[in-house]
Amino acid sequence: MKNKIDHIGIVVKSIDDALKFYNGLLGITPAGEEILEDRGLRVCFIEIGDTRIELLQPTREDSEVSKFLEKKGEGLHHVAYEVENVKEAIEKAKEIGLKPLSDEPKPGAHNTSVVFMHPKTTNGVLTELLQHN
Amino acid sequence: MKNKIDHIGIVVKSIDDALKFYNGLLGITPAGEEILEDRGLRVCFIEIGDTRIELLQPTREDSEVSKFLEKKGEGLHHVAYEVENVKEAIEKAKEIGLKPLSDEPKPGAHNTSVVFMHPKTTNGVLTELLQHN
Repeated sequence: MKNKIDHIGIVVKSIDDALKFYNGLLGITPAGEEILEDRGLRVCFIEIGDTRIELLQPTREDSEVSKFLEKKGEGLHHVAYEVENVKEAIEKAKEIGLKPLSDEPKPGAHNTSVVFMHPKTTNGVLTELLQHN
Repeated sequence: MKNKIDHIGIVVKSIDDALKFYNGLLGITPAGEEILEDRGLRVCFIEIGDTRIELLQPTREDSEVSKFLEKKGEGLHHVAYEVENVKEAIEKAKEIGLKPLSDEPKPGAHNTSVVFMHPKTTNGVLTELLQHN
């Protein structure tokens, strides 16, 4: 397994407003931004040390994070760990009693294969395992 | 400002159980553990890349994280960013409309000075700024 947090996802109402902290206070210029039409998301990437914050802003009411925003408000959404082999990680996870949300990895952004783990089995933290292909 | 996440705090009921993921799946041996009697906490340090996960387990019912655990359950608690000068960061934060929870930094663990920012002004994320002295 690699030993790295790939990124931390944070749901925000407004990326522009959130940048007050990351840019205004920490002085970090965002590395880039993407609109993911199919997921209803505007994503802003903040590189910090060897990891990355991803600010997730819904672009429509039925976006991937709209329910989260409605129920819990803004806040930490998930933590993604880089692994060398996500298929092996899924098998290993099942062996030790964790619960992957799918049996097979799914294609993620930037040529990755990803799986999410049920937060009930990862101490309340929605956890993503991610392999760069 | 430095450009580094110092650590991510995660509240758990049981560190031993949480290690199923960090040690069992990711294969990381914890860097150490501390009992903080005054805060009612057992803390386990997981070094990952250039940052660190801190698993926070209450050791008594009136611990620093007991209310959090009761209201929200296990999960992400705070993100700590390293800054060069925490006093300057407090002033800057106020200037740009963020809300530090104290006007002066407080002593933190391992010879640090720290301040927390009100999560309402940092997009729902309880945010710590931390200076190594």
